[in-house]
Amino acid sequence: MFQDTICALATPQGIGALGIIRVSGNESISIVNSVFKGKNLEQASSHTVVYGYIRDGEEIIDEVMVSVFRAPKTFTAENLVEITCHGSHYIEQKILSLLLTQGCRLAQAGEFTQRAFLHGRIDLSQAEAVADLIAAENKASHDMALSQMRGGFSSLLKELRIELLDLASLLELELDFSEEDVEFADRSQLIGLMDQILTTVQPLIDSFSYGNALKNGVPVTILGKPNAGKSTLLNALLQEDRAIVSDIAGTTRDTIEESLIIHGVQFRFIDTAGLRETEDTIEAIGVAKAMEKAKEASIILYLADMESLDWEEVRTDLNKFHRDNLYLMICLTKQDKISHFDNSSIPEEILQTYPVLTLSVKTNPDLTELKEKMYAYIEQQKTTSQTIVNNARHLNALVRAKESLVLCKEGLQNGLSSELVAIDLRRALEALGEIVGQVSNDELLGNIFGKFCIGK
Amino acid sequence: MFQDTICALATPQGIGALGIIRVSGNESISIVNSVFKGKNLEQASSHTVVYGYIRDGEEIIDEVMVSVFRAPKTFTAENLVEITCHGSHYIEQKILSLLLTQGCRLAQAGEFTQRAFLHGRIDLSQAEAVADLIAAENKASHDMALSQMRGGFSSLLKELRIELLDLASLLELELDFSEEDVEFADRSQLIGLMDQILTTVQPLIDSFSYGNALKNGVPVTILGKPNAGKSTLLNALLQEDRAIVSDIAGTTRDTIEESLIIHGVQFRFIDTAGLRETEDTIEAIGVAKAMEKAKEASIILYLADMESLDWEEVRTDLNKFHRDNLYLMICLTKQDKISHFDNSSIPEEILQTYPVLTLSVKTNPDLTELKEKMYAYIEQQKTTSQTIVNNARHLNALVRAKESLVLCKEGLQNGLSSELVAIDLRRALEALGEIVGQVSNDELLGNIFGKFCIGK
Repeated sequence: MFQDTICALATPQGIGALGIIRVSGNESISIVNSVFKGKNLEQASSHTVVYGYIRDGEEIIDEVMVSVFRAPKTFTAENLVEITCHGSHYIEQKILSLLLTQGCRLAQAGEFTQRAFLHGRIDLSQAEAVADLIAAENKASHDMALSQMRGGFSSLLKELRIELLDLASLLELELDFSEEDVEFADRSQLIGLMDQILTTVQPLIDSFSYGNALKNGVPVTILGKPNAGKSTLLNALLQEDRAIVSDIAGTTRDTIEESLIIHGVQFRFIDTAGLRETEDTIEAIGVAKAMEKAKEASIILYLADMESLDWEEVRTDLNKFHRDNLYLMICLTKQDKISHFDNSSIPEEILQTYPVLTLSVKTNPDLTELKEKMYAYIEQQKTTSQTIVNNARHLNALVRAKESLVLCKEGLQNGLSSELVAIDLRRALEALGEIVGQVSNDELLGNIFGKFCIGK
Repeated sequence: MFQDTICALATPQGIGALGIIRVSGNESISIVNSVFKGKNLEQASSHTVVYGYIRDGEEIIDEVMVSVFRAPKTFTAENLVEITCHGSHYIEQKILSLLLTQGCRLAQAGEFTQRAFLHGRIDLSQAEAVADLIAAENKASHDMALSQMRGGFSSLLKELRIELLDLASLLELELDFSEEDVEFADRSQLIGLMDQILTTVQPLIDSFSYGNALKNGVPVTILGKPNAGKSTLLNALLQEDRAIVSDIAGTTRDTIEESLIIHGVQFRFIDTAGLRETEDTIEAIGVAKAMEKAKEASIILYLADMESLDWEEVRTDLNKFHRDNLYLMICLTKQDKISHFDNSSIPEEILQTYPVLTLSVKTNPDLTELKEKMYAYIEQQKTTSQTIVNNARHLNALVRAKESLVLCKEGLQNGLSSELVAIDLRRALEALGEIVGQVSNDELLGNIFGKFCIGK
């Protein structure tokens, strides 16, 4: 399919014991053999490793192990060679230059995976999962990417497409006989089938907010009046698991963002400026930012100091944030500062609407309950569907497929001609086909594989 | 020899297409097999690659390729397994943790290479060369490390040691018959042999300054009066080859250090404060620093502005720096600023002692002549010996060997008893043995392998 042989460093840049240079294409084995001193690689069996030296003429570049993989059972479905050399930048560059002089060209980002896709070894959603897998930093995003890479999503879509294709053929058969005005497909059966398909597509669409949270981290905004203990809570949350705290790029100076993994799920905590009316311009910007962050949050922790608890104020603040698809928790802080707290002083309608926790971070830094509640909220969002969508491109295609399917169903119900119904059906098929790459174009592929690292 | 099985990440940290986890030890194949889903690794032939999954119970961690190498033909001379997984920190850590639960332990820095040494697969100087090879950033240091790793130095030392051992046995035979006062070894023959050996050892010692320059870069200090064009020259040198310019760690704010590769040899240029008497405290510190850098240099480029040339001043400065093993070049700068320069105005004794170049960096930025002269100076230091010593530990051992050999020779010349001569001979043998590791101790090994990266 491809005439050229590509090569690239497949391991991260930097000094290490080993580095791998990957070479793929028809000529990969003979090209590497031409710079190899050792057993003849052209005679090596597939999936074997040969010891020897990479040489430039008589000059030795490095002592290496060369793994030979013969098409089609390779990552790219082409002849593939992996040169394991010493992990030195100088050596890696030297070997790559040498391969270029022998007729290889440098691979573009994601080109190995793209070849695997174009040779039909994996579909597009699986190819995308490879990149997600490499980028995954916690169990939740790792597991999702791995399941997608192993084809869970693909086979579900395949089944859907087969059902739709059957439907489409029936309708198109009618078109062939349109002058005779026959109906091969029972309309009520068709509508039933359409309902079934929509029942599969809808949970996939619904799973996106959960999938996206798992992939990019669940945004948790910490809000409250100034000095309610927001930063103290953030520090307490992070200190317990300091080792897995990481800075998030793009952290602004006025809102602090830090990550915490709870049972493998990443939560991104955003500490904000205290909420109050202020004449200070800079502080006012901070308050506006806090309100903005509140809008992006999946979870809001609203903190209120027990010493100066004013339920009227709390109620006013909560009304500003309240919306669907938001988990709003009230954390009453500084319990240690007051001698006694009467739970019955919490207004009934607050207790019924929001979970309320009392905290005393300084005397009792155990935040297990808070963390478990946040985790439980995310877990409860897990759809019944085994497959979770976490890719905006897939969501977009699914939404378009659903829209076409709904139009289709309405058409069937309203006795629209099979010709028009078939058009919507084809659109749905196309949208689903985009996900796995059965329908694709160069721009889309460039967009997807361009985000990969070189060597993948 | 070792009961435990070690594992470590062998590729650099960071995100990449692939990463390698190395496992070595008797149990390595069975341990990896216990977390592997795919063909039975215990039945895999040596030097083959098996496709499959790493799993924690039923949970899949990653899709991997596992290379199996069976003792003794492996890097460590033990059973060795390399797991090539996706280059994700999360996955790599997950696989390592899994291996630990199965009875592996994390390898210490350099432990794989140390095992190769302790199993006699390579000697100590070869093991050290592995680390040098990985760290090499240019052709000169790469070639030296590769030649040492391939055993060039080792075989030379082996020959030397055999000759010395023969000598020692002869002398010790005399000791056994000491009461009979016989001389098995002809003294003049022995002295001749000793001379021969010294003729091999001396060039090795001499090669160190060259080898060290190749390995760590040749220090070139740029000196001169303020505004003589020092920084302009440095920039001109670097701009031409900007791509391979690199910052050297530890660059101080007051002396700028940058690297340039000329024909594969690294030159480290140090720009200094202009030399002048000054009452400014900070400037005075700068001038003192410049003088210090002059002492460390292998090459000094002394710049003098042709517009304000004062040979008396130049002579005074040069006298401050002049010493052995230093290549001092005079660069007359800003030629474009003066209408005519009379070469005969250069004092005769200066022309006889130092190379003098006229430069006009701004109008003629071609610095080939300057660079070639610097390179030629380094090349001319190349010893006739094929083997170059670049390791301070080796130099130290060679110097001690030489001292003992000289004592030995003097002893033979002065008719010292074979008993005493044999003691010096043993010392020389010991010193040479330290280089290849025939004589070693835990502290020495810890010192050498501790500097390796983990996974090597």
